[in-house]
Amino acid sequence: MFTVCGGFMNLGAGLARRMCRTYTTAKNIGSFPDYVKVVEVGARDGLQNEKEIVPTQTKIELINRLSGSGLPVVEATSFVSPKWVPQMADHTEVLTGIQMQKGVSYPVLVPNMKGFKDALAAGAKEIAVFGAASETFTQKNINCTIEESIKKFSDVLEAARDNGIKVRGYVSCVVGCPYEGPVAPEVVAKVAGMLYRAGCYEISLGDTIGVGTPGTMRPMLQAVLQQVPASALAVHCHDTYGQALANILTAMAMGIATVDSSVAGLGGCPYAKGASGNVATEDVLYMLHGMGIPTGVDLQKVIGAGEFICKALNRPNNSKVARALSRL
Amino acid sequence: MFTVCGGFMNLGAGLARRMCRTYTTAKNIGSFPDYVKVVEVGARDGLQNEKEIVPTQTKIELINRLSGSGLPVVEATSFVSPKWVPQMADHTEVLTGIQMQKGVSYPVLVPNMKGFKDALAAGAKEIAVFGAASETFTQKNINCTIEESIKKFSDVLEAARDNGIKVRGYVSCVVGCPYEGPVAPEVVAKVAGMLYRAGCYEISLGDTIGVGTPGTMRPMLQAVLQQVPASALAVHCHDTYGQALANILTAMAMGIATVDSSVAGLGGCPYAKGASGNVATEDVLYMLHGMGIPTGVDLQKVIGAGEFICKALNRPNNSKVARALSRL
Repeated sequence: MFTVCGGFMNLGAGLARRMCRTYTTAKNIGSFPDYVKVVEVGARDGLQNEKEIVPTQTKIELINRLSGSGLPVVEATSFVSPKWVPQMADHTEVLTGIQMQKGVSYPVLVPNMKGFKDALAAGAKEIAVFGAASETFTQKNINCTIEESIKKFSDVLEAARDNGIKVRGYVSCVVGCPYEGPVAPEVVAKVAGMLYRAGCYEISLGDTIGVGTPGTMRPMLQAVLQQVPASALAVHCHDTYGQALANILTAMAMGIATVDSSVAGLGGCPYAKGASGNVATEDVLYMLHGMGIPTGVDLQKVIGAGEFICKALNRPNNSKVARALSRL
Repeated sequence: MFTVCGGFMNLGAGLARRMCRTYTTAKNIGSFPDYVKVVEVGARDGLQNEKEIVPTQTKIELINRLSGSGLPVVEATSFVSPKWVPQMADHTEVLTGIQMQKGVSYPVLVPNMKGFKDALAAGAKEIAVFGAASETFTQKNINCTIEESIKKFSDVLEAARDNGIKVRGYVSCVVGCPYEGPVAPEVVAKVAGMLYRAGCYEISLGDTIGVGTPGTMRPMLQAVLQQVPASALAVHCHDTYGQALANILTAMAMGIATVDSSVAGLGGCPYAKGASGNVATEDVLYMLHGMGIPTGVDLQKVIGAGEFICKALNRPNNSKVARALSRL
């Protein structure tokens, strides 16, 4: 009488799995986007934070599985110096090794012209550049002001335009900074606006340390929407404090229809053992599909990709949906 | 440049902890309740699902710590037969052993008149009765129809009224049932309405298996609100699929201002190893305070209570907020 979980004991795994799928179809409940574009960042933002070097073939297999699930955007790798990010040293092998699916975009991270040239040579069609909404963070990390950091990207953006390459812009620390604490919405709006006017077709707003709640996301987004239209905005939420889905829901209620996420919740902080990082793609898809919002993505295939990479890396699966469904 | 977590390495633990607390104060962002009553269910709903028998003194210490944190309601135990729930066999010792704080309510679960008499003798001032929104579930668990199950409580409700005892009503399986799959909102509304009219002052709507999303919570709540006013409703969300905070946010946007939660996410399914259960109180408080919604609860004290019980039971802490703050 006082528990229901025992009921699963009486269900075959197949039936239980089908039954659970039925929860993910409901009518669109309105005042949310009609479609959400899910941007998968696990192969880059996730894997770059792994301690062990991940074999190139494992990365390629992961990306192929992800793009085979219907995900429209699968961030592939980062053309940064191997000195700084050894995990991404095989960027050219990864980008040339994957089976590019028609209609799927494979952006790669590019910090400077050297990275841009390498990415272009490897066949990149979309790149991503990085800014942060904290002066101290920018100063400590790349030794310049925010404004200077954006200017540094201007030759990359110009070269991208000349070569017909789309550019995505990231803004990190949009509600909190590890050095400065709370970040003012106006600063985020300023940085996002600069990247947008500099030619980025989409600005991804990152709660990099996961401290945001609907109470800080909303005023931040309100400020950014003064500078950048909702159609050119994405949210990139980390789940460190468990707030990611509530924050994504808040952003969607404000018209934002692009959500970054990471299969199996890959990623997190390389310096803190067991820290949880990016919100899991599976958990985002479960919510979206449960709200009747189409994504074009097959959740079961993403779960399969997550199980593959977790087994390959011998790490726990940080998606609650994947864990719940694997128990049925 | 590509990660911010390293920044915490440069902060003393005390500073980092204070810094994180600053994220939890923001202006009320409107269209949500001005105050939320958090109902702590860890000592009952959580501990009854532990495999090992928890010592009575540990339960008492946990409850005292929880009520000392400012929580207005701390569910204490269950007056059920020890044959069915051996974890709660010490109900009388627990209820008579705790230090009752003025202004804090300590409801206890009561399934029948025997339980009511024992609870009354032990000094209970509030009880809770249980219904479910699934015929199959009710049939399999207590061998009667939903309507009969409510009638079974009528003598308890009458006796409670005669003794000035407040009665809380639980409805489980409000969006999904392990036997029937999706549950129709109308059935939930019917059961909630029956309990309300039978004299329950508050109805707690339980997504017992955690399958709900905003897409299923909203139509369910819309139906229930036809029968029971928002001021008499609570939500009781499990986080099995990671959706609990998004569901709570959805309920609050509909005017519901009472939220059940469990310190350290205690609870979960006794039959599935590692299954996550009730949403963690710490994670709920972090969201509410971040939204500028007062609760009267000291988050740090709740985290302390969670650390105490996790250490005592040698179990992981299922609160992401507790885990994140303990790393700083």
